[in-house]
Amino acid sequence: MRNLKMIIQYDGTRYKGWQRQKDNDLTIQGKLENVLSKMTGETIQVIGCGRTDSGVHAENYVANFHTNCEYSIKTIMGYLYDFLPEDIVVKSIKDTGERFHARYNVKSKTYIYRINNSKVRNVFNRKYVYHTDENLDLENMRKGAEYLIGTNDFQSFTSLKHNTKSTVRTINYIDIKENDGLIEIEVNGNGFLLNMVRIITGTLLEVAKGKLKPEDVKRILDEKRRAEAGPIAQPKGLILKDVTF
Amino acid sequence: MRNLKMIIQYDGTRYKGWQRQKDNDLTIQGKLENVLSKMTGETIQVIGCGRTDSGVHAENYVANFHTNCEYSIKTIMGYLYDFLPEDIVVKSIKDTGERFHARYNVKSKTYIYRINNSKVRNVFNRKYVYHTDENLDLENMRKGAEYLIGTNDFQSFTSLKHNTKSTVRTINYIDIKENDGLIEIEVNGNGFLLNMVRIITGTLLEVAKGKLKPEDVKRILDEKRRAEAGPIAQPKGLILKDVTF
Repeated sequence: MRNLKMIIQYDGTRYKGWQRQKDNDLTIQGKLENVLSKMTGETIQVIGCGRTDSGVHAENYVANFHTNCEYSIKTIMGYLYDFLPEDIVVKSIKDTGERFHARYNVKSKTYIYRINNSKVRNVFNRKYVYHTDENLDLENMRKGAEYLIGTNDFQSFTSLKHNTKSTVRTINYIDIKENDGLIEIEVNGNGFLLNMVRIITGTLLEVAKGKLKPEDVKRILDEKRRAEAGPIAQPKGLILKDVTF
Repeated sequence: MRNLKMIIQYDGTRYKGWQRQKDNDLTIQGKLENVLSKMTGETIQVIGCGRTDSGVHAENYVANFHTNCEYSIKTIMGYLYDFLPEDIVVKSIKDTGERFHARYNVKSKTYIYRINNSKVRNVFNRKYVYHTDENLDLENMRKGAEYLIGTNDFQSFTSLKHNTKSTVRTINYIDIKENDGLIEIEVNGNGFLLNMVRIITGTLLEVAKGKLKPEDVKRILDEKRRAEAGPIAQPKGLILKDVTF
């Protein structure tokens, strides 16, 4: 049986996130499984590298699926090109070792949150960038972000309700760049809890606006209560950039 | 009476171009006039720097309108921000001399046509960039473009039917750049005929694909017949970049 690894780019605007839900819900996984099942005549299950929230985008999402289909990569690429909607593109496919698993084998993920910090909106990136004309202090934002680096319990930074699983994760770096009014917050870590990057962003935005001090981020982390952190940032500014295995 | 000059950015995807047509047609001019008329209580006529085709975009479109409304620029900007749809943004407004006329006073315009020349589509620019995976010879494209520089009769490069107006225009430069699979054809001239940039692009694409030779562009120009030129390029790749006065 073949095990095929795909790299997928998608515009999440009109989807309820990656994960297949009810049959009539629009999800990336659902779309892919439908097209691949039709192509192969099998019931294809696509294993994704993680869930992305409703409205969140991906540049290089990684997924794999098993099939007995013997079509060449080129044929499969062509089929997907023809039958996937225009907001989902499979950038590459390759045969991979039978033990490769897109979720279990993830080593790290990189997300980018984009903010247009200028007086006016921009019509061309309006679906992929969050706009705010408020004054943002990026130096304070960077100071606040420092407290999140390393291995911590991120219970304050997730919408997950209390459960038995660990909320400890490792963030390797948070890099905050600005170029001509476009701010990019790049977060790399070994894994992320539900809504974690968006709540981190929402909290760092409060710091940037002066509503929180950088050192409040340390306190919020220690409190381990979602209510202490800032609001959740809009999904449209978030994109899953890369995944390493 | 005030004369207000606006710089406007728009995503032309869902519009039938700049120019107001029948009342129920979606046009940029129509949207602006409706909102400004409501704001001022007057019947506002917006003078644009030219027509853009259905589906074509603009980064810095220039327009002006006359009004007795005494609102501050800030208030007008706020009103437009609140009441224009998300795909039209007025980037700036200023009071200008009473004789300024956005169409008559144009000195030159710059258009950019964008092509994604890579194996796969890109979901994030799919509405603003034309995609082709064919091999394109940019050196030949540049050679072909050279024949169009200067003052010429562009009858072969317009969808305008024969009429009494001049089809002579001056192209100052055509600059063709490529960066990581994204090709930009930048065309600057003193004015453009109906569909002219798109037919130039379509013709240069034929040269780049080897279906025409660079020197065929000279012949096409001399023939003065639309049928000699290449097909019209898709509108979505075209954007009006700048206008000078």
